[in-house]
Amino acid sequence: MAEQKKMVDEITSMDVDFAQWYTDIVKKADLIDYSSVKGCMVIRPYGYAIWENIQKLLDSRFKATGHENVYMPMFIPESLLEKEKDHVEGFAPEVAWVTHGGNEKLAERLCVRPTSETLFCEHYANIIQSHRDLPKLYNQWCSVVRWEKTTRPFLRSREFLWQEGHTAHATAQEAIEETERMLNVYADFCREELCMPVVKGRKTESDKFAGAEATYAIEALMHDGKALQAGTSHYFGDGFAKAFNIMFTDKDNKQQYVHQTSWGVTTRLIGAVIMSHGDDNGLVLPPAVAPVQIVILPIAQHKPGVLEKAQELKERLSAAGFRVKADCSENSAGWKFAEYEMKGVPLRLEVGPKDIENGQCVLVRRDNREKTFVKFEELEKVAKTLLDELASSLYNKALDNLEKRTYSCTSTDGIIKALADNGDGFVKTMWCGEEACEDKVKELTGVGSRCIPFEQEQLAENCVCCGKKAKYTLYWAKAY
Amino acid sequence: MAEQKKMVDEITSMDVDFAQWYTDIVKKADLIDYSSVKGCMVIRPYGYAIWENIQKLLDSRFKATGHENVYMPMFIPESLLEKEKDHVEGFAPEVAWVTHGGNEKLAERLCVRPTSETLFCEHYANIIQSHRDLPKLYNQWCSVVRWEKTTRPFLRSREFLWQEGHTAHATAQEAIEETERMLNVYADFCREELCMPVVKGRKTESDKFAGAEATYAIEALMHDGKALQAGTSHYFGDGFAKAFNIMFTDKDNKQQYVHQTSWGVTTRLIGAVIMSHGDDNGLVLPPAVAPVQIVILPIAQHKPGVLEKAQELKERLSAAGFRVKADCSENSAGWKFAEYEMKGVPLRLEVGPKDIENGQCVLVRRDNREKTFVKFEELEKVAKTLLDELASSLYNKALDNLEKRTYSCTSTDGIIKALADNGDGFVKTMWCGEEACEDKVKELTGVGSRCIPFEQEQLAENCVCCGKKAKYTLYWAKAY
Repeated sequence: MAEQKKMVDEITSMDVDFAQWYTDIVKKADLIDYSSVKGCMVIRPYGYAIWENIQKLLDSRFKATGHENVYMPMFIPESLLEKEKDHVEGFAPEVAWVTHGGNEKLAERLCVRPTSETLFCEHYANIIQSHRDLPKLYNQWCSVVRWEKTTRPFLRSREFLWQEGHTAHATAQEAIEETERMLNVYADFCREELCMPVVKGRKTESDKFAGAEATYAIEALMHDGKALQAGTSHYFGDGFAKAFNIMFTDKDNKQQYVHQTSWGVTTRLIGAVIMSHGDDNGLVLPPAVAPVQIVILPIAQHKPGVLEKAQELKERLSAAGFRVKADCSENSAGWKFAEYEMKGVPLRLEVGPKDIENGQCVLVRRDNREKTFVKFEELEKVAKTLLDELASSLYNKALDNLEKRTYSCTSTDGIIKALADNGDGFVKTMWCGEEACEDKVKELTGVGSRCIPFEQEQLAENCVCCGKKAKYTLYWAKAY
Repeated sequence: MAEQKKMVDEITSMDVDFAQWYTDIVKKADLIDYSSVKGCMVIRPYGYAIWENIQKLLDSRFKATGHENVYMPMFIPESLLEKEKDHVEGFAPEVAWVTHGGNEKLAERLCVRPTSETLFCEHYANIIQSHRDLPKLYNQWCSVVRWEKTTRPFLRSREFLWQEGHTAHATAQEAIEETERMLNVYADFCREELCMPVVKGRKTESDKFAGAEATYAIEALMHDGKALQAGTSHYFGDGFAKAFNIMFTDKDNKQQYVHQTSWGVTTRLIGAVIMSHGDDNGLVLPPAVAPVQIVILPIAQHKPGVLEKAQELKERLSAAGFRVKADCSENSAGWKFAEYEMKGVPLRLEVGPKDIENGQCVLVRRDNREKTFVKFEELEKVAKTLLDELASSLYNKALDNLEKRTYSCTSTDGIIKALADNGDGFVKTMWCGEEACEDKVKELTGVGSRCIPFEQEQLAENCVCCGKKAKYTLYWAKAY
């Protein structure tokens, strides 16, 4: 147990310094490495395997809703970026510019894509002619670059991996439905696979995507009470279509502009998983995205038959579809316990000479360390049940955190008091809809607007700030 | 049939103008679109789906040989690129340089990765300490940028998609074994999945990768007799390790440099597939990578029961694991025939009222248009057999082309005559090993060296050029 203690001591406790706890985990669980490229990160095999699992699960949800994958160039000529006025204003200040190819200066600067609306629009103008060409439901998996000043692994980096869906529709209504459909796909994915509850809603005017008519978002609450925007879905109306002249001939042979959407989630989701479920012993991974779901640790492995049994169980569990690793290295059991707790492996399987005699092994849940003795013949069934139960527990714990830390307030003083009494969290208030009140609440209380939730409630008659007639329920929080 | 003819007429015949035939196919089979980003392409859903299949199949071969995926930053600081002298000399003239982030000039230029040896080396120097950390067997899937002057879709573009494996080993021997292992993985993949025979060999000194001790390559022969380098695998010795100080403590507690490799294939493989198997009606896709393996075309689809049957067969074939599409659109049968021939779908399934009465349907192979009547109850079995037979035929035809077009020559005049008499192809000669002879043969005959094949033959005593004692058999060809 000495070694175990040592490993655990190396991470800062989340209650002492949450930011340092986070940084400790991303490094010590081997998720990332820093490099000499400022603001960018190396995503190591264990971190990348989480992303591959996220990709696989999301991609099948995208395909099930009729989307196809494509690949656009990573560069955008300056003149193309400038075609939609709001869009370029939003992104130009934070793009990386390529000015030279080899030794030659380029005639026109190219930016490294911060997002690909302009490229998709140019392509759509080429390939959409008739109503029979619609809808176009495209997605791409790629990396994008935004020249951020302050960066943190997964949460905000100059380069990050993401998917960006871009769709074109015959009518505004279809496009709005798509925007909502994909927000729901994200929310379902977060709940079912990442065990993470989210609040679904619309961003305020001041907070929308550059060029969008409306931006929808899912907002999650991290363990420290700060909000994290986990995915967005934008409705563009025909603004981009007009700027890029994307027209089609409708059934009555008239020329019409298409209506568009875009939507995306990023490697930030890995940060969300860490800060939703992790604890002072390290990562705790939801089974759906864990690179290793069950780690097998042979106990007293020098004893005859132990390693063979470990290997046999590994093969059985793999054959049953679990992602399994057997660690038969010569590291001590204590070291191994701490290592796989740090890495958040959902189930630890211990098997030693006595267990073998008794025809059983032990399964230990990562989240609550609960031990279950399992007869070998029931291993697959019990492992499945325990993983499902662990997933439910993670979700319920995160939901409990979200609910306990959502404060309904009717005055700015009430907000200040709620946060002072209970710590950071979501603040729920009524709001008149004016940006001036949005700004003032932030200035007075420190929480910014997160979203106008789809589930509107009548918490009070009047705006939390100006006291005039309220139009919306609004969620506020400090945010990543 | 009128429509079918019209579709087919739109492609240039490959015998008339092979380059134009290729360009016609990539556009008309909806593989790519051009964009305003010069030298880059949009990979459309049908083209990208081929790449996804290639990725899936290769990735599982990489994982089966113990490799893990990672993701490195897309930027390389100029000072990092410069650390290995030969490497920077090879790549600096063809990289894209980022000089500004937002409105600010960067303190140091960053190049967009043309390949990531330098980034992997920096990371390896961080994470490798002991012999227990070795080997490191990493791979990444990403896009890279090389500022090419002349570009062609898939074959040579400024941005392309690829995978790059980067490994570090304790000994030179292990690294050399890895280099060869991965070349074999590529060759097996080309043969078994792309139905494409390749020649395996070593590049001459003048043709190696910048920074490598040895470069191995697989060379395929396209339908027009030109060679295409389809994949490379490099052995680095400890050159990069010394430049980046990647050392480990060996079992005797001594500090040693690691030995490294890298290996890659790109979206160029899609070009190779097109030019290996395509014909004057369009693409012909190997079943393993075809986005749609079987297209179902209902005949006289307005008659009762036809669409239902088409749908039923689609579900059956999907359930059996085939990639299937049913085209129940109102386009004419002739249009559909031509469309899916253009797209290279391996099998066409036709089903009409008479077929249904007879309890059967028709399967038509894309490559030779052979028809097979199939009882419904035998559909899955026969479809599997026909796809396997089609794959064998594609391979045998490509192998036949390669063998017929490989000319064994013993003089430069002989080379000139062989090419004049038989058209372009591989030329196989003996060679003294001197670069001067390599250059002179190219100057006199137009064919450049491709590789020193692993299967060495004794074709003659003397060098094809200088007449001195020969050291190697060498393959030559005009190349893409």
